[in-house]
Amino acid sequence: MLASASAAVSGMSGSAIRDLLAVATRPGVLSLAGGLPATDLIPRERIAAEIAARLADPLTLQYTQTCGDDTARARIAAYAGVAPAEILLVNGSQQALSLLATALVDPGDIVVVDEPCYVGARQAFESVRARLESIPLGPDGFDVEELQRRLVAGLRPRLVHTVGRFHNPGGVSLPADARARLLGLAERYGFWVVDDDPYGAIDFTGGQARSQVGDGVESPALLRLGSASKVLAPALRVGWLCAPAEVITVVERLRQSVDLCGSTLAQRVVGELLADRPWLDTHLAGLRAAYAERANALVAALRRRIPDARFTEPTGGMFVWVRLPGVDTSALLPAAVDAGMAFVPGAAFAVTGDLSDRMRLSYATLPPGRMDEAMTRLADVLQPDRVTVQ
Amino acid sequence: MLASASAAVSGMSGSAIRDLLAVATRPGVLSLAGGLPATDLIPRERIAAEIAARLADPLTLQYTQTCGDDTARARIAAYAGVAPAEILLVNGSQQALSLLATALVDPGDIVVVDEPCYVGARQAFESVRARLESIPLGPDGFDVEELQRRLVAGLRPRLVHTVGRFHNPGGVSLPADARARLLGLAERYGFWVVDDDPYGAIDFTGGQARSQVGDGVESPALLRLGSASKVLAPALRVGWLCAPAEVITVVERLRQSVDLCGSTLAQRVVGELLADRPWLDTHLAGLRAAYAERANALVAALRRRIPDARFTEPTGGMFVWVRLPGVDTSALLPAAVDAGMAFVPGAAFAVTGDLSDRMRLSYATLPPGRMDEAMTRLADVLQPDRVTVQ
Repeated sequence: MLASASAAVSGMSGSAIRDLLAVATRPGVLSLAGGLPATDLIPRERIAAEIAARLADPLTLQYTQTCGDDTARARIAAYAGVAPAEILLVNGSQQALSLLATALVDPGDIVVVDEPCYVGARQAFESVRARLESIPLGPDGFDVEELQRRLVAGLRPRLVHTVGRFHNPGGVSLPADARARLLGLAERYGFWVVDDDPYGAIDFTGGQARSQVGDGVESPALLRLGSASKVLAPALRVGWLCAPAEVITVVERLRQSVDLCGSTLAQRVVGELLADRPWLDTHLAGLRAAYAERANALVAALRRRIPDARFTEPTGGMFVWVRLPGVDTSALLPAAVDAGMAFVPGAAFAVTGDLSDRMRLSYATLPPGRMDEAMTRLADVLQPDRVTVQ
Repeated sequence: MLASASAAVSGMSGSAIRDLLAVATRPGVLSLAGGLPATDLIPRERIAAEIAARLADPLTLQYTQTCGDDTARARIAAYAGVAPAEILLVNGSQQALSLLATALVDPGDIVVVDEPCYVGARQAFESVRARLESIPLGPDGFDVEELQRRLVAGLRPRLVHTVGRFHNPGGVSLPADARARLLGLAERYGFWVVDDDPYGAIDFTGGQARSQVGDGVESPALLRLGSASKVLAPALRVGWLCAPAEVITVVERLRQSVDLCGSTLAQRVVGELLADRPWLDTHLAGLRAAYAERANALVAALRRRIPDARFTEPTGGMFVWVRLPGVDTSALLPAAVDAGMAFVPGAAFAVTGDLSDRMRLSYATLPPGRMDEAMTRLADVLQPDRVTVQ
């Protein structure tokens, strides 16, 4: 089951990569391919208790409003730092991406995305026949300077999408001053900025150093996406869109024909858990420590076993984006799976660029003690390629 | 909250009707406007127990496949009488409508719907810019003869949508022989038939007399929608699409960019409950008896208090579609709400026709003992109109 789930999350439907990654869940394969949170880090007991408590109210099982249950909406709005009228609860933030693409982008409109790009974003914008313009991701996330150059040269996008914190797959984050400049450009040139933020709370620096695009900055151009999937549980299917109230109204009307509404029960459970700050702070501290330990173990193993690998050390999130100069990672994958490890080849995240020598390694689901073995297996299959490159 | 929920279900966003129906939930208003199941008929204890049991498996809180959790899919497929490859689990059957509209209908394609039409279907097809062609609903549901006349005259629809059993809002059902003729026309002229079936299990005749479009008939043109919302609970947000495996594959790919996947937990809960036939049979028997009692009470009150009303006595589902000759029901609604009752005016379900003298009465949520009072209040506000009509 998880093979297809990880393929779904990575968005590689129908491809040979998907078939290979399905094989990657067989026993003995150490997979760094999935974009899933670690099952053992999901706060199952607390969620079970909260579900049981919420079910005392029979209306928890009824239909709710298209924009979300009132109580849950108020609580999640408080967590996200916006007014209730500025938030819409969705079935995972992918639904918000899809709704925004449909509501705001017409066929032929230009949408700027990162290169590499989160696959779900590319799919959502492609499905409304946007013209994708990609900008190579920099060491500090979205390349605002390059966007500015293209705007000056005449580019007129309808929307810019990025993952501002702990990029998927890039791992990097956008500094506060660059965020402010991006929003300034958005207001000046008249485009929307979608800041897709499922990983923001998994911040190894303790949440001090990095804040979401727009934190402390009011901008009518900013559309923020959040999600409970990585910090609570994917199966709750609760995400949210923070946007100006006029945008919320338009998206709400569209969402009515898309699926009427989300789950009252799941929304209330998420609302309660995000509002319980003492519990949440403890839970998030545990999550950050566990993912940081896995990230450190992977980085140490990478350095030890594959010294040629180039990457930015993660400070949060779930991914290390690795460059292996001279290696075709798509061609490498079958051998890697045969050797008992898996990754997602860079080509899966390409828009127009050549990312064939990159790979995404997710440290989320593998125990820290297995990272060295995984990188040893990868190093073994890399051996012939590395020789030809030297 | 429920005011907006019922408006969402009825699909009257942004309209004056929606504002009025919001008022209809204030204490003292007897509302027959909502399309919600009765909250007191939701099997809350059984659902709570099943959720707790499913949560013993940590993977219940993980992502699942885009087409649905394997176990749940197999169980719901068995309930629906199809193979697992022929079913896709969705977030309520409205999502299936929206996905089918996007996957199968191009802008300008002709989609045939009933007049009156389920509002969610109209919205889903309008959102992909289909050209809607409506056929007046007959006393036996979808008018297959009229469709045949139009096909012979040259109409070439891409898709036909109907609610085959206990139509919303029409209340009527399509006989088995007409169903077979509809599917024959679909295969001959090359269009899809969407049979939208959220109410089929709420059959006062015991389920003997009426079966879903396609039961016992294999047709590659048939797309069936089912839902747990009316028989289990709306907040589970579990519906399903039964279709040829090739259609499932296309819709699955689309759904990946729409919201990745549904809730593993909710799907497994629904799968278990639908597979527990002894429990389900008892539960459905209770549901049918309770709704039949409400339907009978409403029908008796209608005949007693408003003898001019024309309607078909319901044999299942949740609705009575009433004609009040000479009455503009949209104009009547404010006075009715002031008098302490509410309904949905016929105009809300119109496509191109004039349904201004119709209204939808839902007997689902009002206790049987209040039906007479509700109809008395309606009769009171009707008095002047009835005088002018006589």
